Amino acid sequence: MGQGEFSLIERFLSHFPRAKVQVGPGDDCAVLAPGKGAQCVTIDALVEDVHFTRAHFTPEDIGHKALAVNLSDLAAMGARPRWFLCALALPRELPRRALLGLARGMSALAEEHGIALVGGNFTSARELSITITAAGELRTSPITRSGGRPGDVLYVSGTLGEARLGLLHLQEGRRRSSAILRQKRPRPRVALGLLAARFASAGLDISDGLAQDLGHLCRASGTGAELGLSLLPLSPAVRAALGPQGALAGGEDYELLLAIPPSRTSAFERACGRAGERVTRIGQLTGGPPGLIRELGGRSLRLPAGFDHFRNGRTD
Amino acid sequence: MGQGEFSLIERFLSHFPRAKVQVGPGDDCAVLAPGKGAQCVTIDALVEDVHFTRAHFTPEDIGHKALAVNLSDLAAMGARPRWFLCALALPRELPRRALLGLARGMSALAEEHGIALVGGNFTSARELSITITAAGELRTSPITRSGGRPGDVLYVSGTLGEARLGLLHLQEGRRRSSAILRQKRPRPRVALGLLAARFASAGLDISDGLAQDLGHLCRASGTGAELGLSLLPLSPAVRAALGPQGALAGGEDYELLLAIPPSRTSAFERACGRAGERVTRIGQLTGGPPGLIRELGGRSLRLPAGFDHFRNGRTD
Repeated sequence: MGQGEFSLIERFLSHFPRAKVQVGPGDDCAVLAPGKGAQCVTIDALVEDVHFTRAHFTPEDIGHKALAVNLSDLAAMGARPRWFLCALALPRELPRRALLGLARGMSALAEEHGIALVGGNFTSARELSITITAAGELRTSPITRSGGRPGDVLYVSGTLGEARLGLLHLQEGRRRSSAILRQKRPRPRVALGLLAARFASAGLDISDGLAQDLGHLCRASGTGAELGLSLLPLSPAVRAALGPQGALAGGEDYELLLAIPPSRTSAFERACGRAGERVTRIGQLTGGPPGLIRELGGRSLRLPAGFDHFRNGRTD
Repeated sequence: MGQGEFSLIERFLSHFPRAKVQVGPGDDCAVLAPGKGAQCVTIDALVEDVHFTRAHFTPEDIGHKALAVNLSDLAAMGARPRWFLCALALPRELPRRALLGLARGMSALAEEHGIALVGGNFTSARELSITITAAGELRTSPITRSGGRPGDVLYVSGTLGEARLGLLHLQEGRRRSSAILRQKRPRPRVALGLLAARFASAGLDISDGLAQDLGHLCRASGTGAELGLSLLPLSPAVRAALGPQGALAGGEDYELLLAIPPSRTSAFERACGRAGERVTRIGQLTGGPPGLIRELGGRSLRLPAGFDHFRNGRTD
């Protein structure tokens, strides 16, 4: 790595506050004091032309989203974000200002969630990609996928299908819509995850679409589920363009899907109300065959296939 | 992600022992009990046609090397390896058996060093890349780059320049040599790092070539250095093909460069002798201008530029 690259790393780092750690960026490893609670760690990558295109996403969008998808994993466990590492694979022709745009998008979201960049790695590559490892600390038991029991009530946060609609808008050549903003700038539900950890028996973040992700939860918990299609929280635009079936397959929602034991639903709903967190009851776990999802009332539900970002969005 | 990919992840994971952690692969995050000592974390990527080519490296080589470069960072801090996360970016045409080869190469080295795979991520991409985050635990203070003082004695482990010579051999069309093995299968100096943490004032692993990496150590420590070219540990093959100047620029050695206070050198050498770790005195830190490296005796040293793997190896 030449001196030019070292100064580029320094300029990238200058967008982030200095991490309060024993050893931060610049040594072989970052060194972190041991935490009090258990640690949650996750790794997730955004790859050019799979998860984003440079034609549709600004560098700030890409930086934001790369960190957001990792924060969403921490949120899904009920962890408080602590630190992250960032590996950048950079095409040689990438303009320097694009790299600094990535840093700005990432650092704004990092600051919002109080997560510190403690180290990273730059390498050249043909396609742009960002791989982030994020770590958080638990003060409760983690929200896992496997803790659900028949009778637990299913909730989702926010609205569904928006990011998928945003992708369609981009592919149609539109530049701006609230759905496009949801596609480019997902908001990880960190505060809701911390709150939900006191109530939930199981949960995860919805990245592959509600249908697929509910299937994951059910298989891990050994339950079936009943879902009310009419209960799904959809914006008018999503209802008109995709309908409930389309929203079920709406990848990249980055909302939380939570299973709450029936005895705890009232307290959970009150806590969400006080915190200003929007959650919607959409069904319940059942004793049915593991992974089988029916419509509320008993009809079996035709489940759409999951959704695979830009590349499949184009070729399917 | 389709069901096919889930079963591929399961087959990949089946090459690794089940991690002894609260929550392992398959949930949104891995959950790890808090450690006793401070934690070292690092992230490093291997990218196709930059760090390896599929023509020259078997999948096992690639899996081994991707983990080895991260273990080397832990070794450089004096940390005991604990867990790692692995993000794979996979071209769609990559044969399934290649993926399982990656797993085999990685798991053999992981087992050797007692490090557990606790999670990961698969994505499609045009070029193959592997990004790993590795974490280790400290029982001592970390070995940093910044702790060196004038008078500290410089040591390197093993021999230098071998991996660079191996790269040249591959580019010349040779298939097999001990240098090629060093290029493909670097041996991270984990045991030496643990031992050295009791003695060293500073250190790092030699990934960019001794000349560059000694420069990093000197600038971080605010020292100069004197180096004995005739003292560098070189194999006969490296001495003949590259000479000391070539070995100075020999990237990807993954040996350790350590600064030991003069009062501790005897004890350090005895401890290395007992442990069967080969280390060689090559010079010392000086009060000279930070980063300035001279030849022992006072002549200033013409330092070769660093070395940038396959891509630059071809285009320079």
